[in-house]
Amino acid sequence: MARLVAEMTMSLDGFIALPDDSVGGLFDWYSNGTVEVPTARPDMTWHVSQASAEHLQRTMSAGALLVGRRIFDITQGWDGQHPISCPIVVLSHSVPDGWPRDGVPYTFVTSGFQEAVEAASRLAGDKDVGLAGPDIIRQAIDAGLLAEVRVNLAPWLLGSGIRFFDHLGSAPVKLERTRVIEGDGVTHLYFNVLPRPDY
Amino acid sequence: MARLVAEMTMSLDGFIALPDDSVGGLFDWYSNGTVEVPTARPDMTWHVSQASAEHLQRTMSAGALLVGRRIFDITQGWDGQHPISCPIVVLSHSVPDGWPRDGVPYTFVTSGFQEAVEAASRLAGDKDVGLAGPDIIRQAIDAGLLAEVRVNLAPWLLGSGIRFFDHLGSAPVKLERTRVIEGDGVTHLYFNVLPRPDY
Repeated sequence: MARLVAEMTMSLDGFIALPDDSVGGLFDWYSNGTVEVPTARPDMTWHVSQASAEHLQRTMSAGALLVGRRIFDITQGWDGQHPISCPIVVLSHSVPDGWPRDGVPYTFVTSGFQEAVEAASRLAGDKDVGLAGPDIIRQAIDAGLLAEVRVNLAPWLLGSGIRFFDHLGSAPVKLERTRVIEGDGVTHLYFNVLPRPDY
Repeated sequence: MARLVAEMTMSLDGFIALPDDSVGGLFDWYSNGTVEVPTARPDMTWHVSQASAEHLQRTMSAGALLVGRRIFDITQGWDGQHPISCPIVVLSHSVPDGWPRDGVPYTFVTSGFQEAVEAASRLAGDKDVGLAGPDIIRQAIDAGLLAEVRVNLAPWLLGSGIRFFDHLGSAPVKLERTRVIEGDGVTHLYFNVLPRPDY
């Protein structure tokens, strides 16, 4: 099975979005630098610090992404083109209206988390599977399947909103910091998730 | 007025303690290194990484500490000797039984947060006032008085417990990362709290 790697941008008080799903200043770091990072979308180029560009290289090397239905709906399915050029697996109770679409590499899995992980792993080949969305990530942690978590720590206290980590059933979970990258307006923190017998 | 500097050890999911006020593995970094850091308590010497020792030098240079009643009670008033050798101001609704005590530099302020800040500032002289306890820190943020926040980020997901940041009335609050220190089993993150007109 491919390695599962979770990544989200989070405020210092643990939020990935405000209560209305907007992100406030959390994503400022995608546009506050001089290094151009093209995405798979012609209408989207990031401008980040050199340090964040190094980080994004890793993010964008994912072999597949596994995401939840909520983030799919909020982004309107990235209008059919995710910024990262790789197959996308959407875990959902039902296939959204109008999907799948010809030429768009999105797979909808309605049979459960484990099946979605297997589909994404097959698509990723020997690369990592990237996970986005707190509910998907929580399920991966609780199933003991998450290998790594990368937090883009944004210098904000949002006070309320959607938490990165919530309702964890398997806590406490021990991590091991493996990398710190100091971007401009963001700190990229990489942690391995330690297997249970190790602590 | 002295600079107010908040510091707590926090899990990646934002907790400073478990629901029963125990700290799980959060404080492992105080005893996982080879550098001896003596404290003001004869029975307590920390053994930390060189990087964390550098951080603790700053922590221990506080001119006074301002803490809440809850942390005072949980630690039983540090048995009359806080690890940091400086005056301690305890904000409380009432003076706890048996206090104050001769020779113990603890001041109990029952007239409110602002008065406690003023007392701690006077005691700190030209040094910083260190703040510990989420409720005290929240009040300082909401009053626009917090200058800096230092998070000792511990590599754990605790799942539930006491949050560092909760019930913030003044959010969103913008921060500016000023320093990252990679200790062993902890990442020390320093942020300035930006004044409101700046964003």
